[in-house]
Amino acid sequence: MKTICKRNENYSQWYQDVIASADLAEHSVVRGCMIIKPYGYAIWERIVSVLDSMLKNKKIKNAYFPIFIPQSFLEKEKQHIEGFSPELAVVTHGGGKKLEEPLIIRPTSETIIYESFSKWIQSYRDLPFVINQWANVVRWEMRPRLFLRTTEFLWQEGHTAHTSLNEAEDYSLMILNEVYAKFAEEYLAMPVYKGQKSDGEKFAGALKTFCIEALMQDGKSLQAGTSHNLSDNFSKSFNVTFLDKDEKRKNVFQTSWGVSTRLIGGLIMIHSDDKGLVLPPKIAPIQVVIIPIIKTGEKKIISKAQSIAKQLTEFSVEVDLREDLRPGQKFYEWEKKGVPVRIEIGPKDLEKGVVILVRRDTGKKEECLINQLPKRVDKLLRDIQLNIFTIALKHREESNKIADSWKEFEELLKQGGYVFSYFCGEKKCEAEIKNKTKAVSRFLPLDIEEEEGDHYCIHCGKKTFYNKRWAFALSY
Amino acid sequence: MKTICKRNENYSQWYQDVIASADLAEHSVVRGCMIIKPYGYAIWERIVSVLDSMLKNKKIKNAYFPIFIPQSFLEKEKQHIEGFSPELAVVTHGGGKKLEEPLIIRPTSETIIYESFSKWIQSYRDLPFVINQWANVVRWEMRPRLFLRTTEFLWQEGHTAHTSLNEAEDYSLMILNEVYAKFAEEYLAMPVYKGQKSDGEKFAGALKTFCIEALMQDGKSLQAGTSHNLSDNFSKSFNVTFLDKDEKRKNVFQTSWGVSTRLIGGLIMIHSDDKGLVLPPKIAPIQVVIIPIIKTGEKKIISKAQSIAKQLTEFSVEVDLREDLRPGQKFYEWEKKGVPVRIEIGPKDLEKGVVILVRRDTGKKEECLINQLPKRVDKLLRDIQLNIFTIALKHREESNKIADSWKEFEELLKQGGYVFSYFCGEKKCEAEIKNKTKAVSRFLPLDIEEEEGDHYCIHCGKKTFYNKRWAFALSY
Repeated sequence: MKTICKRNENYSQWYQDVIASADLAEHSVVRGCMIIKPYGYAIWERIVSVLDSMLKNKKIKNAYFPIFIPQSFLEKEKQHIEGFSPELAVVTHGGGKKLEEPLIIRPTSETIIYESFSKWIQSYRDLPFVINQWANVVRWEMRPRLFLRTTEFLWQEGHTAHTSLNEAEDYSLMILNEVYAKFAEEYLAMPVYKGQKSDGEKFAGALKTFCIEALMQDGKSLQAGTSHNLSDNFSKSFNVTFLDKDEKRKNVFQTSWGVSTRLIGGLIMIHSDDKGLVLPPKIAPIQVVIIPIIKTGEKKIISKAQSIAKQLTEFSVEVDLREDLRPGQKFYEWEKKGVPVRIEIGPKDLEKGVVILVRRDTGKKEECLINQLPKRVDKLLRDIQLNIFTIALKHREESNKIADSWKEFEELLKQGGYVFSYFCGEKKCEAEIKNKTKAVSRFLPLDIEEEEGDHYCIHCGKKTFYNKRWAFALSY
Repeated sequence: MKTICKRNENYSQWYQDVIASADLAEHSVVRGCMIIKPYGYAIWERIVSVLDSMLKNKKIKNAYFPIFIPQSFLEKEKQHIEGFSPELAVVTHGGGKKLEEPLIIRPTSETIIYESFSKWIQSYRDLPFVINQWANVVRWEMRPRLFLRTTEFLWQEGHTAHTSLNEAEDYSLMILNEVYAKFAEEYLAMPVYKGQKSDGEKFAGALKTFCIEALMQDGKSLQAGTSHNLSDNFSKSFNVTFLDKDEKRKNVFQTSWGVSTRLIGGLIMIHSDDKGLVLPPKIAPIQVVIIPIIKTGEKKIISKAQSIAKQLTEFSVEVDLREDLRPGQKFYEWEKKGVPVRIEIGPKDLEKGVVILVRRDTGKKEECLINQLPKRVDKLLRDIQLNIFTIALKHREESNKIADSWKEFEELLKQGGYVFSYFCGEKKCEAEIKNKTKAVSRFLPLDIEEEEGDHYCIHCGKKTFYNKRWAFALSY
């Protein structure tokens, strides 16, 4: 069986080992593309199920648009094509013939969707117009990493149109706050900062990109979701207009926002340990595994295991009755798969009317009376959900640093965690910072207070008009 | 507002009108590709949700494989590439460079998935190996029709590996009978024949293709789902082997099976009428629409409508409170959208403590005491589900014909419905039949008894070794 490298020895290898040991995914023969295996896909199904409900609660409906985008569409928004052109996959032949115009496999669907918006939206009565799509997208990837960076990935992309820039801004922030950050923290147990991207890091074609970012255990930051205020950039290129109450035809203001299978990469990296995957109970495809401790197939213990499973139907439970594995092997396997709670049922315990509960996060064992199991398991799952969130939060808070000189900045960045510094926000300056440190700004935090006074960029020394420090970190 | 052409005047135009009036889907700017609009996609979501549960009940797990298939993979199984090569979309450039080997966008995933099977399957203990994928696929389409034939479509594809040919055959039939036929009849209210395809019509690379076929209102047959016994054709090409109990390495036997967004096309065509879409209650995204009959926004009736909706939470209910439409306009709109039951709440009815229920399928109105609504609505939805199934079944049975001479055969085919005749089953003969009549065999029925004696092909007159009549029909 595959052993798992230690986090502090080789974090990158550890990440791959955790994925392989939990049987989540693997690289395919097609370079850059991954195969999501059943257990990994079951995590994605949980993510989709919860997020889709959250979106539907916001009255957002799903639709489906073509995977193909005419090349000329992508070229209509100048920044958009500039940003995406190095990453495109191009279909030149279809049905045995060379195509008159090449088709691009969607790297994102603003262009093809807004072409439809231009037909569907007529009047202010049609606004706000809101739609979401669950789909696969393709962005050519030279340095693939499972879940984090793959040429094809799965995601949702939401697209909206509004009467005003303010409304678009509010909507993109609503998605960030009430859907993405809430989902990350409450379900993935992943503490996130909410922030705004710099001009150099924002979405190609956006006025502003808002993001959630989470700190991984190696001190690097992961962009876990983005929500863009597109202003009227695309609506001008695609002529998406509405007749306003004043009888004037105006361009709509738009937003788009997405999260992807990358979330699974973050989930793995933020919680797992040297024994393998650790999953938050609210997302775990299997929350409880029941393992009867038997040498041969003793029927009494097997039927007890099954009757206990029936007591726990409000949870997702697996009873492991495989006869070709010893209990210890099973413990080891389910640990690597990150199942939050293990229930061991042995003959001696059974005589006492108890079972043993083992938490995946802390490894702590406890006895539990069988008739108190549902209540106790429920409590344990809540505790685990909270505990792994708290650990991740504590790690982030303890890693936070402030730098006020370039020397300090360079030094602290290497230590990992977010380094908060004043910054001019300019593309050229940021490119130079990246050259020197490999780091870029991650975000300008949304939820911290402004500090009055004069502030100067940590790198170029110019006076900055931002009254908040930016967060910098190495990243994925 | 768009009017709907009559079925008996122009069936093809009627189909398009029903889709447009219900706002289900439209053609995109990318030829052959469709946009599935929110209401159409909500039907797909219902289909996916039910089918996915049925598959999970069979212990089938989902996974996800790359959209790209190296061209050389498709070429490994000779019949497979011959069958699919005219329909392929080819990616020649990625990440700004010409690819060394072109990538095909999956038209189906046998090849890329079985490459993985060859690594994952080692021993008889790993068998049967069963996996399913929900995905988009691309088959270049020269004569697109919404839902029925589109270049890109959505589907599920199941793939299995077994120790023996018999087990593979049984599995492919199990999927046909216990999943596809059951789903079509019990949920889509679509009576289906279960049959086997001829050599000329079977899946490229299969030993046998089993199918479910349904008769549409214009007398044409729709292939609604297929399940293939692939024998060891692909396992030989992709070297998918297992170490058997006798310590010998052997090739696995395989199956694959799929249904697609085409089901929505069938659903539309089989039940809808000249007023628009008719949906089976078990699949309808909205089962009940509540329309308060008010001129201005009378608060009493609105709050009554809302309290009635709260009584009906076990159903999917929409309360239509739009103020810019008259009740008659709303009736008309929801009829076109095929909502099974409409509840009208008027001021006079309310005084009597009743509401009016209207069935979409028959148009019949009835009064119902408000406190009996949940029970009555439940009964009505069941009645509608059964009624539209019964109508479709009756139509099919009344259209069935038997032909024993070529002249009769040609004549009866034109009348629509299935024509049952003896047939040699040979490719060449079938191609000639198609040339003369535009029809091919749809299936050799699975569930009818064999008739002893000598039988002769309806076309070539040769003695046939089939002891059952084949079903012929014009088709989609």
